This record gives sequence, structure tokens and C-alpha cells, in this order.
Amino acid sequence: MKIPKLTGTLSNKIKTQIKINDITIGRDFLVIAGPCSVESEEQILSAAKAVKAAGANMLRGGAYKPRSSPYSFQGLGRYGLEYLKKAGQAVDLPIITEVIDTRDVYLVSEYADVLQIGARNMQNFSLLVEVGKTKKPVLLKRGLYATIEEWLNCAEYILKEGNPNVILCERGIRTIETYTRNTLDLSAVAAVKRMTHLPVIVDPSHATGRVELIGDMSLSSIMAGCDGLEIEVHPCPGKALSDAEQQLDPEQFKKLMRRINLTRELRNLLEDNEICPE
Amino acid sequence: MKIPKLTGTLSNKIKTQIKINDITIGRDFLVIAGPCSVESEEQILSAAKAVKAAGANMLRGGAYKPRSSPYSFQGLGRYGLEYLKKAGQAVDLPIITEVIDTRDVYLVSEYADVLQIGARNMQNFSLLVEVGKTKKPVLLKRGLYATIEEWLNCAEYILKEGNPNVILCERGIRTIETYTRNTLDLSAVAAVKRMTHLPVIVDPSHATGRVELIGDMSLSSIMAGCDGLEIEVHPCPGKALSDAEQQLDPEQFKKLMRRINLTRELRNLLEDNEICPE
Amino acid sequence: MKIPKLTGTLSNKIKTQIKINDITIGRDFLVIAGPCSVESEEQILSAAKAVKAAGANMLRGGAYKPRSSPYSFQGLGRYGLEYLKKAGQAVDLPIITEVIDTRDVYLVSEYADVLQIGARNMQNFSLLVEVGKTKKPVLLKRGLYATIEEWLNCAEYILKEGNPNVILCERGIRTIETYTRNTLDLSAVAAVKRMTHLPVIVDPSHATGRVELIGDMSLSSIMAGCDGLEIEVHPCPGKALSDAEQQLDPEQFKKLMRRINLTRELRNLLEDNEICPE
Amino acid sequence: MKIPKLTGTLSNKIKTQIKINDITIGRDFLVIAGPCSVESEEQILSAAKAVKAAGANMLRGGAYKPRSSPYSFQGLGRYGLEYLKKAGQAVDLPIITEVIDTRDVYLVSEYADVLQIGARNMQNFSLLVEVGKTKKPVLLKRGLYATIEEWLNCAEYILKEGNPNVILCERGIRTIETYTRNTLDLSAVAAVKRMTHLPVIVDPSHATGRVELIGDMSLSSIMAGCDGLEIEVHPCPGKALSDAEQQLDPEQFKKLMRRINLTRELRNLLEDNEICPE
Repeated sequence: MKIPKLTGTLSNKIKTQIKINDITIGRDFLVIAGPCSVESEEQILSAAKAVKAAGANMLRGGAYKPRSSPYSFQGLGRYGLEYLKKAGQAVDLPIITEVIDTRDVYLVSEYADVLQIGARNMQNFSLLVEVGKTKKPVLLKRGLYATIEEWLNCAEYILKEGNPNVILCERGIRTIETYTRNTLDLSAVAAVKRMTHLPVIVDPSHATGRVELIGDMSLSSIMAGCDGLEIEVHPCPGKALSDAEQQLDPEQFKKLMRRINLTRELRNLLEDNEICPE
Repeated sequence: MKIPKLTGTLSNKIKTQIKINDITIGRDFLVIAGPCSVESEEQILSAAKAVKAAGANMLRGGAYKPRSSPYSFQGLGRYGLEYLKKAGQAVDLPIITEVIDTRDVYLVSEYADVLQIGARNMQNFSLLVEVGKTKKPVLLKRGLYATIEEWLNCAEYILKEGNPNVILCERGIRTIETYTRNTLDLSAVAAVKRMTHLPVIVDPSHATGRVELIGDMSLSSIMAGCDGLEIEVHPCPGKALSDAEQQLDPEQFKKLMRRINLTRELRNLLEDNEICPE
Repeated sequence: MKIPKLTGTLSNKIKTQIKINDITIGRDFLVIAGPCSVESEEQILSAAKAVKAAGANMLRGGAYKPRSSPYSFQGLGRYGLEYLKKAGQAVDLPIITEVIDTRDVYLVSEYADVLQIGARNMQNFSLLVEVGKTKKPVLLKRGLYATIEEWLNCAEYILKEGNPNVILCERGIRTIETYTRNTLDLSAVAAVKRMTHLPVIVDPSHATGRVELIGDMSLSSIMAGCDGLEIEVHPCPGKALSDAEQQLDPEQFKKLMRRINLTRELRNLLEDNEICPE
Repeated sequence: MKIPKLTGTLSNKIKTQIKINDITIGRDFLVIAGPCSVESEEQILSAAKAVKAAGANMLRGGAYKPRSSPYSFQGLGRYGLEYLKKAGQAVDLPIITEVIDTRDVYLVSEYADVLQIGARNMQNFSLLVEVGKTKKPVLLKRGLYATIEEWLNCAEYILKEGNPNVILCERGIRTIETYTRNTLDLSAVAAVKRMTHLPVIVDPSHATGRVELIGDMSLSSIMAGCDGLEIEVHPCPGKALSDAEQQLDPEQFKKLMRRINLTRELRNLLEDNEICPE
């Protein structure tokens, strides 16, 4: 396998760290939480308060939604950006939201602290070049059919344009197993951590598509060595306009955060070779 | 499986036909041929003459190339469009070329007779909406990870914007078989022909990635009931800047066209129930 | 890709031909037809008469059925073999049936003209060795997850034991497409025909799992260069104890045979280079 | 998804526990370790001493090896069983080895404490029935193409014969990712733990096929809720006759065991709802 040069560790011996307000991604463990879609000013504010209280350090919410069917809810667009921005400010959390069109990159950059490239746009090369021209941190999701090599080459498109602030996100690949929405590929996380200097996080919500599996997969991801998690949390999942079956409610997320913190402590111990050499 | 309404046969009992100059796609068998990429004015003109002489009825050539690596040849852009247009006029063939960015749709529409949406952009929904706003015929390739249902929903995005001129193109899906570049899914072609009123064509070049298999797969596709083929032909495949291993040379294409024509005659006979009722 | 030596063309420049009664597989086009399972003496006899009348040259029927669930019909075992044998004799057709246990190889060989190794047993190496020790022709189905290389290595297991009479059968692989039962991989058929001297046939019934697609896929398979077809035909598909949704009725099969014969004639013409050189 | 009745939790509210000498599988964490193949009396004894000293509680070693190519090392057969048995006795560890032929079930049962059914034999139904007739504990590996539903149905074949002592083992499925040998499906482990009362363990060696990933995947598996691990350990991996690239050496395994134990302690804490309620 050929690792592209800027993305590979040869170009950068030390791990990339990305500072956003008080967090330094790649050093501090990143927990992005929030609803799949921004549905209203009240909904996103309520979600923001809940995830902040539980200990998340970044707020997510979709304003432009790539949906399989043109008849599904497509997001609130610019209004969604406004509501998300306000909610982030209200609870003092940086925000991340998806951009799906080269023409929107400037606009979304005005609002978001991190630009998200979704799995279906991983190989939308024009979009990669466009976000590469900004200096905004970019979260690049792995395509649900993409090999590790293709994924890293997409990161290379962004780095090549001069934007070094790329975060990789494993969100499950499509396989013969249909019980889970996708198959979370944690060996890819452990492998990519060895190939690149970029932070690598995991999205267990899209990977599993099932509320009851998100907790275990979050903890598994930490032990695979990930630098963070992106978890869907909705004030009232049953009423969600998208991904209803895979969003945690605030109470579930609060309990999961305690487990995440304990697991992080162990992983930190293990990475300290004095305690337990690898 | 849920077939979206405009794409499904319920919305249109008769098969969609798309007239471009002298060809009527959906009635006449479509043979799109030409190089993967437009590399120079001479190269595309030479390819155009060869495929016209062999009997192709549309000329292809990529000006904007989506490539896995940012270091690969990315196409000649606007110059590529110019050269392709000239070549098409020189041999009196309509032209098709890929559009990969919403911002280029207007420009590419100025040149192309048919807009191609590539497999990696199948779910680039902003792009689908944009080409849906034009009245240009659109060739929609199936994503290499896409189910039939997802593919038809992408066609629906285009139809919903008011553009009825959509052509579907099966080009192979990614599977566990790695000997061929992808796996040509001909049962999907036979199935989709029964689900929709849109023309369905096949691209055996990308599906197989191997020159020696393109002939047999072209003939198999015809017997699966496809409405046309898209085949990569290069004046000198060994010198191609992209897809060198899967482009036919003019002589190979000329011989294949004779086989395609014979096979089409048989398929037409079989579709005439007086001769051989199904 | 490494082609194993006995299976590869290096070991045998001329194509392998297997003579059974009046048919010579590898020269004559093989059409195996009959029900998924032998269900009763009457059922298999009725099926035998129908497929013989329509022009099939081998009768199939399962006596030992590998089923996903232990609660599904498992076949009639030795009685099934008896009924199948009688039916074959009544209509003067050689018979093929599956063997799933090393302990049954001798018994099944007493009845069958050809031993079938099913997709789920493709890598049951003990079974391959055992059928390799007989001189009975063996039909080796491709595993639904198997690469071409793995498939040819399984043929090698049989050849290595001294049994040269192996027929390969593509029956679809498991992919992300779930509308069809599996995905028929015809580019593998065209590829394997170039790699080995063994006959290669196609089973469109299991590949598609849908009656309406079997006809088109049979004709497509012929144009891909296959040496035969295995098609499930049941006197009354609606009453079948297994695979009800993918078995043709006698009338459908009779009409399909006419189309198969016409398509074979064309393929023969094309293979005659004086008519249309490749 | 339909969960078969004996395998599903409805048939047994309490988790199944399987006692073998001093271990109780399903209660105690199972660590199976040892070489891919038994290669000599010295090799397996040396491996046995190493894994015992590191804290493994079961010894593995293949005597009958299912290999893709008939020209690869096929195992020592009965001698392998003898050497494995002696080695297990020498270090007082129960032993597990694979059975691949219905005719060998009785023989292998004479030696082994646990019978292993490999991934390629998961749907070798005759073999499942045969091991179901013994009362020996059976480790059933998931097929590399198998859905959860198919896997549980194979367990049902064994339980239905009256053998309740089944252990499930996830070992990776085949996907589009080829950097790792297979893709470890840990969401399936978390899911299956909720569907069945049977113990579920993980084989990170075959799943990843890469020494450097086995450690992280072992710890991830524990946090996914598995009941044990099967890890390949060879006295000198570089000299191994099979799977050289995925076997740990004794020193690597010793260090990994310390990490496994620490991770197990955390998982136990989390499962204690007083400490951290889910």
C-alpha cells in the first residue's frame, strides 16, 4: 500500500495537533456530540446544553443534509447554520457541520469551527480542493466503500492545497452484514494511526445505526487508539427528522460519557510505557 | 424495495426516448466511445475519426477527471472541452463529458450534448440538483458501492428538478473479487430495465478494467437487455495518461462493433415475440 | 494472480472434454435442468419429462440439501437418489446431485453421473480430496465469497488427486446488492475461460434468486463464453419445498430453451473467426 | 432478523457457562493461545510453556489445516494431535484444535477438550451435526462471508443435536478493505452478546493478519463485551509453516496479557452498575 506523502508520517514525525478555542485535537480527547440535523432553534439549543453538561467538547448539527431520497428532510440550510452557531455560543462549544457543495464552502466557513466532509462526498474532489483552500479544520469521513488508501489520498487532496488541519473519521464501511447499518472497521483505525500524523476519530452512531451498540463501540474505539468520537445525541430521538433510530437521548449520553472517561484513563495508562510496556 | 415515483414505470408507461441530433436514445442502440481523457487536440480528433468509422454514435472524452490521487493527471479542463467539441463537430458525433463540480455545470453544458455524472459523484446531491435544473440529457453512473434503490433515488433527484432526460449506466460495483477492477452487475441491468422507463446502458471498460474482457462483457450486456454501451477507445492505449490498461485500440474496437451489431440483431429478434415468445 | 498448475492452461493446451453417455461437456453445450430438491418420485419424474422434452441434456435434483436453518427441509437422502436415478433412466438423461459429506461420496457415486460440490462446501477440502479420488465428473460451484484464485485452487485439490473431470460453475457472489439473491459475476466467467482448460458453466437461478431475471442472465452467460447452464425447473414452483421463488415452470423453461439455442448459434458464429474475427 | 430458538435468549435466560477443568467459559475470561499449526513436538511444547507462563488458560494448535492451496502445509494430522495433547498435559492446559472432516470427529474428540469449526466449514452442516452429537464443547467460527443470522443458525444445528456447549468466535469478515486480512466486526460481537446466551470470543489474529494490530484489537474486543480471545503465538513466528505474519512471539504475548488483564478489570467495573450505570 502506498501512503501519500503529506498525509504519511514521513512528512511529519510529530502528531498533528489542531487548536480550537480551549481544545487541542490530537492531544485532548475530542467528543463531538449533537443531533443528526438542526431541526429548530430550540432543539439545537436544548441538545447543546445537554451535551455540554455531559462533557462533550464540540457541538454537531447538520444544516445541509445529504439524503438518499430527494423527498427526505434536506436540512434548514442557512437557518440551520444560524441556530447552530447561536447554540454553540450559548454553551461555549465550538461547532462542526457538514458542507456538501463547493459553492457553500465560504458561507459555511463563516459559521463553523470545523467543516465536515461526509462519507458520500469523500471523493468529491472539487469539494476537497475547496476546503483545502480554507484554513478551517476539516473532518474527513471515510467513504462507506473506501479503502484506507483511497481515504488517505482524499486527505492528501486537502493537505496539498495548504490546509494541514485534517481530522480523519471512521464511520463504518458497507459489507455483507446488514443487521448493523454499516460495519465499524476498528482495525482500520489502529492501522491508520500508524500510517499518518493526523488525528483519527470514530463515529459509532452511523457505523452501527443502533442505539444499543453505540456505547460498546465507543469504548472499543478508544481501546483501538482513536483520538475522539462523534456521537449523535437528540433531545428527543423519537421525534427526530432523521436518524431517529441511532441517536442517544441526553440521559444515555451522560452515562456513556462517564464510561468514556474511565476508558480514556485506562488507554492513557497503557500508552505510558512505564506502567505497561507494549 | 421502494422504487421512487418519477423514475418508476408508474409515472410513465412508455419507455423514455431522448433525441440527440440523429440518434434517439432508448430506441436506437447507443454506442458511446472515445478515450478516458482528452489529452490533446490531435489525440481526441484521431479517436473521434476512429470511433465514427467503426460505427459509434457518440463521442466521449474526460476534461475534468476525478482521480484517486491528487498527483494523477486531472484533465485539461476547459481546453479539453474545446478539443472534444471540435472533434465531435469534425466527425459529426454528439459528445458526452463528465461534470464534477456544481460551479461547472453551466460551462460544461455549453459544450456537451450529454452531461456525465461519475460513479464517485452519484450521491453528490448538489450536483444532481444542478444538472436537474438544466434540460441537458444526463448519464448517471451507478456508484461502485450503491444499491439499485440508491441509484434510482439519485435519478429521482434529477427528474424531480424537471429534467426527464436521464440515462442510467451500470459500470461495475466493488466486491471481494479483485482480479477485475470491479464486478459488472448485469442482473442489476435486467432488473432495472423492469423497474424504470429510463434507458440503461453499460460501461464494460471500467467494470472489468481489462481489455481482453471488454468484448465478451459488451455482448453479455446486450443480451441482458441494455440500451447501449460506453467503451473506452484510445488511438494508442499504451500512451494513455489514464486507464491505459482498459482502453481498446481502434482496430480492436472496429472488430468489436461488428460483434455488437450481430448481437443486437439477435436481441431484437428475441424481443419480437412472434419469432420467439418469452 | 497465481493460477494453480494443473488447473491452468499450461498443463493442458487443449480444452478438457468430459464424455457422459451422448454428451461431451466442453464441446456440446450443457444444459442441466431440474428441481432444487427431489421431493417425491412423481415430482422428479414429471420434472425429468419436462426438461427432456424442452431439450435439456442433464437432470438435476438435490437429495442432500445444505440449508441455512436446521428446521428447513433437508432433502430425502438415499430415497432422493433412488427417485432421481429412476427419473433419469426413464427419460434417458444423465443425472447430477450434490454430495455434502465425505462419508456419502461412495454412495452418491453409485447413483450420480456427476457429483456436485455446492458453494458452501467449495472450501470443504476433505470433501474435495474425496471426490478427487473417484473418477466421477465433479461440478465445483464457486463459493459466494470466493475469489477466482481460491476457486481455481479448489479445482486443483480435485485434479491433484487424479480426477481430471472437473466442471466449474459460477453461481453468483455475495455483494452489497441485496435485491438479487447474489450478484452473477460474468466477467469472472470470461476471465476463467482464459485461465483454465476446464469447462465453465453458469447457474443463473441461484445467482439471481428471481424467476424474471433467469432468462436474460442465461443469454448473457452464453455471450460471456460459458460452456453450459444449470437452471432450476419445477413442475409446480409454487409448491416447491425449497427455492420456490427461483424455479421456472416447464412452460417457461421450454420457451427459454428456444432462446438459449438461438443465442448459442450466434456465439458459435462469433467464435468462428472467418465470420467475425475477434 | 430471526434468531433461532435454542440459540436465542428465549430458551435460556441465564448465560451459558462451560466448565473445562479449572476454567468456566462464560464466567472466567478465556484466553486461547498457541501456534497456528502444530509443527513438531518441541515447537508445540515450547509454545505451551510460553503461553501458560503468560497467563493463557487454553492451548491451541492445528493438526488438520484447511489451506487454500493443496500444495501448502496441511498439518501433521494424528501426530499433531498427539503432540498437542502431550504439550497441554505438560503445562496443565486444556487444548483446542480444529476438526475438518465428519470422519475425524470421534478421533479428534479423543484428544481435544474443545473442537474448533473453522470459518470455511461454518456451513459444513454435516460436520455441525456430527459435533452436535458429541458432548464436547465446540468453538464455532463465523464464516468470512456469513451474516449474524447465518452464524447463529449454524450454532442452532449443533444445539439441536443435543450439544449445548457452543462458543461463538468472531474472526473477521471479508470486505472491500484488503490492507487487513479481513475486517474484524466488533459491532457484531456486541450485537450477538445481546441475542444469545452463548459465550462469544474474538480471534484478532486471523481478523487482522498483522502482528502490529493484534494488541489494539484484543483490547477493543474486550470493551465490545467479548468473553475471551483466541490469539496465535509461535515460539519463532519467522519460522512458522503457516500464518507467519500474524503470530505473536512469546515476549509480545506476555506484554499483551498484562494489557488484557488491565482492560478486563475495567470492563468488569463497568459491568458493575453500582460503579457506572449503563
